[in-house]
Amino acid sequence: MRRALDAAREATENALPNPRVGCVLLSPDGATLAVGAHHGAGTPHAEVEALSRAGAAARGATAVVTLEPCNHTGRTGPCSDALIAAGVARVVYAQGDPNPAASGGAARLRAAGVEVESGLLAAESEALNLAWTHAVRTGRPYVTWKLAATLDGRSAAADGTSRWITGPTARLDVQRLRAGCDAILVGTGTVITDDPRLTLRDEEDAPLPYGRQPLRVAMGERPIPDDARVRDAEAPFLHLVTRDVDAALAELAAREVRHVWLEGGPRLAGAFLGADRIDEVVAYVAPALLGAGTPALNGTGIGTIADAVRLDLTDVTQVGDDLRMTARVRKDSA
Amino acid sequence: MRRALDAAREATENALPNPRVGCVLLSPDGATLAVGAHHGAGTPHAEVEALSRAGAAARGATAVVTLEPCNHTGRTGPCSDALIAAGVARVVYAQGDPNPAASGGAARLRAAGVEVESGLLAAESEALNLAWTHAVRTGRPYVTWKLAATLDGRSAAADGTSRWITGPTARLDVQRLRAGCDAILVGTGTVITDDPRLTLRDEEDAPLPYGRQPLRVAMGERPIPDDARVRDAEAPFLHLVTRDVDAALAELAAREVRHVWLEGGPRLAGAFLGADRIDEVVAYVAPALLGAGTPALNGTGIGTIADAVRLDLTDVTQVGDDLRMTARVRKDSA
Ligand SMILES: NC(=O)c1ccc[n+]([C@@H]2O[C@H](COP(=O)([O-])OP(=O)(O)OC[C@H]3O[C@@H](n4cnc5c(N)ncnc54)[C@H](OP(=O)(O)O)[C@@H]3O)[C@@H](O)[C@H]2O)c1
Ligand SMILES: NC(=O)c1ccc[n+]([C@@H]2O[C@H](COP(=O)([O-])OP(=O)(O)OC[C@H]3O[C@@H](n4cnc5c(N)ncnc54)[C@H](OP(=O)(O)O)[C@@H]3O)[C@@H](O)[C@H]2O)c1
Repeated sequence: MRRALDAAREATENALPNPRVGCVLLSPDGATLAVGAHHGAGTPHAEVEALSRAGAAARGATAVVTLEPCNHTGRTGPCSDALIAAGVARVVYAQGDPNPAASGGAARLRAAGVEVESGLLAAESEALNLAWTHAVRTGRPYVTWKLAATLDGRSAAADGTSRWITGPTARLDVQRLRAGCDAILVGTGTVITDDPRLTLRDEEDAPLPYGRQPLRVAMGERPIPDDARVRDAEAPFLHLVTRDVDAALAELAAREVRHVWLEGGPRLAGAFLGADRIDEVVAYVAPALLGAGTPALNGTGIGTIADAVRLDLTDVTQVGDDLRMTARVRKDSA
Repeated sequence: MRRALDAAREATENALPNPRVGCVLLSPDGATLAVGAHHGAGTPHAEVEALSRAGAAARGATAVVTLEPCNHTGRTGPCSDALIAAGVARVVYAQGDPNPAASGGAARLRAAGVEVESGLLAAESEALNLAWTHAVRTGRPYVTWKLAATLDGRSAAADGTSRWITGPTARLDVQRLRAGCDAILVGTGTVITDDPRLTLRDEEDAPLPYGRQPLRVAMGERPIPDDARVRDAEAPFLHLVTRDVDAALAELAAREVRHVWLEGGPRLAGAFLGADRIDEVVAYVAPALLGAGTPALNGTGIGTIADAVRLDLTDVTQVGDDLRMTARVRKDSA
């Protein structure tokens, strides 16, 4: 299973909007017949890749796969059928299909006489596909809120200036993490004030080697000017003319957005937090003090310390002169 | 010199208001004759302790000492005289006396025919006595501003509640760092709002094993109520009836305060930052979000991002569930 996980990890930085999956086929005496992985939407699933590599040798084999084989016909046929057709005798998978409405690849395999085991290193597969698992389980995209602030929590100075609070290393790191998401979301306030581009580009305006540009999304009722930079030809753009957080997320989910990168501003982030729709926070903290200006987060409506939203820190890393703190919102505290 | 530094470090957690100093006496053939260290105000200096341990063997010896031997008669006689009287042939010291008005122990030793060398591991001795060195050099206490805030930079919720933003491990860590300072300073606003005790005590109100209680200081023009807890018998208390930052620091310096632990609140901290009188920041950041309430820092008068006060991070440590970030204010940016 470790090798299947490694295959999933190595195959692709991300397989968006699909999960990262790896599969190892073993002969009855334990020899490796083939390794497969999923390389992103429109390409074969990991099991199918491994089966086609193993050919006839797959008969009687054990398939070790990081995710429960699917049982639906999407862009590719169901993997459970492919495993049955190839004569695989046993399937060991890590993470179960998180879709509560899924008809169950495991059940279909068992019904066809295939021996099935599950649960081995399930948490590791889930960690590999945190946003996807959340999105499939809840029907809502996973929301990562990114903030950049001074040590005293200011995202912009009193005169509105905010470039550059953090340094170039942190800004490049943001591009890398943006690339792992399906959509970059900001409020109309940020679009109107800052006219950001919201594309993956480096400081010299050159494209970055991430292959795809996430969907750019502005949310709010005010119109977005025709000449706003988010409307350029670099990447798709969507204006969600609403202030309803759940309606916006439903609209994004319908467009196969599993992971939203929420870049603020403070009021939109406050609305998402108030609606308990932030799952993860990535905070870039600059070693600087302002003592005046726009707070990073506003309008949550939280009035007393006992109601503060508690997080669990999962990572702290120095990026250039700045500090990146990653934390998950504790769902029991909400 | 490493052994002299170790002796300084081990002898005492702090020698306040004096510096931490260590001394090793070596015979002409390099054998260790004696080791001495300074154990705090009113006790012998490191050189004197080592000399008294070595006795007559000190004649012709080399004294390796972390700080330039003093040349003034304070609570103890000048160490340079003691070294000359004991017949020491050679003195090697790390850090020079930072007092710009000092008459110079090294010069006195040289005049008496003692061979003198300096500079070896000077930075390490200085790091051991950061606040003391700063205070002696500038005539002003070194100011460490401590803040405790949520990830979005709030020190209290909208209803004024602030207990407890950070967890018990962080709060105990604050006690340990408070103990390394000579005075704990807050604004009258904090005293009037929170009625804090400002003593070194644990959560169960039991005394902590730090030996001494720092001076408690409130700064501001409003009167401090007679029944305020800062006035209890646990530790001395001083009310500085002024809003002038430099006048307050001069008054503290006159009382042998070399290291001030500034605990806020936000407005007093803002005034100190605005006056460029914060040297170091110790920030306890709780993995929590409020999005409303009192910012950690206020009223600095900084209007644009280019004027932000820049810091250099010197340490990041997880304390319990919280993160402690230590940073020095860049003096060139002020
Ligand atoms: N340093 C950083 O990380 C960072 C990132 C982003 C922004 N900023 C700064 O933030 C400032 C902009 O602040 P902002 O608060 O105006 O920006 P914002 O949060 O991007 O925009 C707020 C607007 O979003 C719309 N909106 C949509 N749904 C909403 C909801 N549920 N609740 C509230 N508003 C909703 C509203 O506009 P409608 O009236 O159109 O509905 C609202 O006025 C700029 O100075 C920018 O530089 C900093
Ligand atoms: N979480 C934390 O780390 C922390 C720590 C401390 C406080 N707090 C919170 O902060 C809040 C109190 O805020 P605050 O701003 O009123 O407290 P503060 O900064 O302690 O007190 C402000 C007062 O200090 C006096 N002052 C003296 N010199 C000053 C100067 N140069 N500039 C401005 N003021 C000067 C003024 O009072 P006069 O009119 O008397 O001159 C002023 O009103 C409380 O809610 C407390 O819980 C939080």
